[in-house]
Amino acid sequence: MIPPLSDTLRPLRQQVFEQIRAAGLIPRVHVAKDLGVSPASVTTITSELIEAGLIEEAAAPRDSETSRGRPAVSLRVRPDAHRVAGMKLSDREHTAVVVDFSGQLIASEAIARTPGAMDLNTLLDASEILLDRVCAKAGISRHDLSAVGLGVPGFVDRSGGVALWSPVLLDRRVPLGPAAAARFGLPVHVDNDANLVTLAELWFGVGRKLSDFAVVTIEHGVGMGLVLNHRIYRGAQGLGMELGHTKVQLDGALCRCGQRGCLEAYIADYALVREATTALNWTYKESRSVGVLLESLYDHAKAGNTAARSIFRRAGRYLAVGLANVVNLFDPELIILSGDRMRYDYLYAADTLAEMEALMLNTGRKGPKIEIHAWGDLLWAHGAAALALSAVTEDLLVPARDMAAQ
Amino acid sequence: MIPPLSDTLRPLRQQVFEQIRAAGLIPRVHVAKDLGVSPASVTTITSELIEAGLIEEAAAPRDSETSRGRPAVSLRVRPDAHRVAGMKLSDREHTAVVVDFSGQLIASEAIARTPGAMDLNTLLDASEILLDRVCAKAGISRHDLSAVGLGVPGFVDRSGGVALWSPVLLDRRVPLGPAAAARFGLPVHVDNDANLVTLAELWFGVGRKLSDFAVVTIEHGVGMGLVLNHRIYRGAQGLGMELGHTKVQLDGALCRCGQRGCLEAYIADYALVREATTALNWTYKESRSVGVLLESLYDHAKAGNTAARSIFRRAGRYLAVGLANVVNLFDPELIILSGDRMRYDYLYAADTLAEMEALMLNTGRKGPKIEIHAWGDLLWAHGAAALALSAVTEDLLVPARDMAAQ
Repeated sequence: MIPPLSDTLRPLRQQVFEQIRAAGLIPRVHVAKDLGVSPASVTTITSELIEAGLIEEAAAPRDSETSRGRPAVSLRVRPDAHRVAGMKLSDREHTAVVVDFSGQLIASEAIARTPGAMDLNTLLDASEILLDRVCAKAGISRHDLSAVGLGVPGFVDRSGGVALWSPVLLDRRVPLGPAAAARFGLPVHVDNDANLVTLAELWFGVGRKLSDFAVVTIEHGVGMGLVLNHRIYRGAQGLGMELGHTKVQLDGALCRCGQRGCLEAYIADYALVREATTALNWTYKESRSVGVLLESLYDHAKAGNTAARSIFRRAGRYLAVGLANVVNLFDPELIILSGDRMRYDYLYAADTLAEMEALMLNTGRKGPKIEIHAWGDLLWAHGAAALALSAVTEDLLVPARDMAAQ
Repeated sequence: MIPPLSDTLRPLRQQVFEQIRAAGLIPRVHVAKDLGVSPASVTTITSELIEAGLIEEAAAPRDSETSRGRPAVSLRVRPDAHRVAGMKLSDREHTAVVVDFSGQLIASEAIARTPGAMDLNTLLDASEILLDRVCAKAGISRHDLSAVGLGVPGFVDRSGGVALWSPVLLDRRVPLGPAAAARFGLPVHVDNDANLVTLAELWFGVGRKLSDFAVVTIEHGVGMGLVLNHRIYRGAQGLGMELGHTKVQLDGALCRCGQRGCLEAYIADYALVREATTALNWTYKESRSVGVLLESLYDHAKAGNTAARSIFRRAGRYLAVGLANVVNLFDPELIILSGDRMRYDYLYAADTLAEMEALMLNTGRKGPKIEIHAWGDLLWAHGAAALALSAVTEDLLVPARDMAAQ
């Protein structure tokens, strides 16, 4: 789609595109200044990107300084260049969005599901119904999509689209990506929960301003994502950032991964609920969801129940340990706390953050900023859409020949 | 020194130089192939690098396939383009090396010292004597050096050359870099122990073949270095990778940093020695060094002393926890274990590595390779020299104008 470019311009072309995408609307001269390259190079590259239909010119709103002249011409990503879908498959419901190439939401849809793991075909049946519904809402056919991003909880081999282990799937090592691609007739990209939240931040959130940050997610499990130089860090096999399974106690509490002493065995919702069954003398009933149990535990704590308070307090202290470890290892500029459970304020109460500071390296320097981001229910699906957008962009900007050479 | 280049060639120029440096001796056509760019671009850039005196042509040794033709012309870094010194200041002795621009050792020197923290001026006096001695051995004056790399244990703010806390210095927040630069009359770059080992690996060890790897060092403390895409990762404030101070037990053993539950409070040498004083009923005497005490503890363990064995066994288990956490977070392709204490085989005994595997994410994938690198005493000084070389290279290849824009 893009005419061949000289090889030396290739890395710059991707940087220019990312700069325009992140800025939303930006004059050529600012792109040149921000990247520290000549306006002439930027003009060459943006002409090619315009010709390829990926970006377009648009009038920038006048600011006071330039209000007397003609409106400055700026560049932006061309919204209708591509459309992609993002879907999050989870234990409680599946959600989906369709967004345009600039990331604007066109339509969203959700379907409830019976909790529990299922086989690949049942999961694909549900996904296909959801995909067609969200496309119908967007007024398009699924074949108008350039790609689909698919998020599942668990351990995912992103390069091969394999769900190595996921609580929504009965089997291990399920080739979810290739199977979904065959079923949908579209390119499908798969990643895990925490990376989806991180991608949502990278494309639509703080990533528009910051090149490096960490995201810690707390809900059924504890996950982490790291952005370095505008890109997600995934590790050699794409299996890094499993903060929830770092060990914070030798021979400690049992984790649902089967090992002992994992951080999430102290702070994830199942960890809280199982202590609640002891502390409050609950009998576990299938019919009461984890959400209902947690809510009840939270009410007990607020009403002054000492056992309930001690459960939240310990979870808060372990969260402080996990966050301090993130700071001591990664030294991020910003940590974003995200996920369903962040609305329980024990998790970011003043004493949790004070404890985190006390466990950080005593260097005399200030710790990173901590932000709580309460996105809506569509956060994960938005992240899945960002996954699809980033794959589409990479395909367009990095020719296959170069990718093979890497 | 290098004539101005078009801005689009700048990132490529650095890549070409690094490729040649890492390869040692490499034909232009291989550089082009490895980087996936045109031979014409490589020829343009290498001509400029030759003209600037940074690289030179050299005849490659004939291999069997090409033995009939004339010898292939290869490129290499010009050894006498620059000379730098690397110095490691530590509790027991200070060591120094002088290397040429290709990293070849020209001279080395060490001076013993009385253990304990000292004030800045006393440390600078010792450093200056050492610097002049190693230069004399190399047959040069210190003013023939392009830069000096200086390594100290502790927490270092590399950008400002500030030792925020170091066991070799009495005060906190000591401006070691600027003070040494003023004293030596040379550019001085400061970093901590673990980053020095990592730089030594990056420049002279596995970094010649691998773009991404982790280094874990065990001696007085526990440190870590991470190389991503041929560069050391340092975090937003340059204070990341403090593996030794990640918490592996809430309210756990006391660490010399003043906090509790740090990994190094279970596996560093002082942690072993203080348990030995209990187990073996030792009284701590100033005159017995930590090394002598450890050696004695090790002998007791080998002779079957149960308490001594349990000390090493627990240290091995905690090392397994630390390594598994590194794998679960960073998913590196290779972990190098380095440092003085690696010769105690409990630290990499089969059961320690088996325990590490048992604590890693159960994804069905193989874990990273683990290698034990037993460098000699000059490892740290070599790393400090690599620090100086990398600063010199960066100054030459990235003009100040561009660095300011970053």
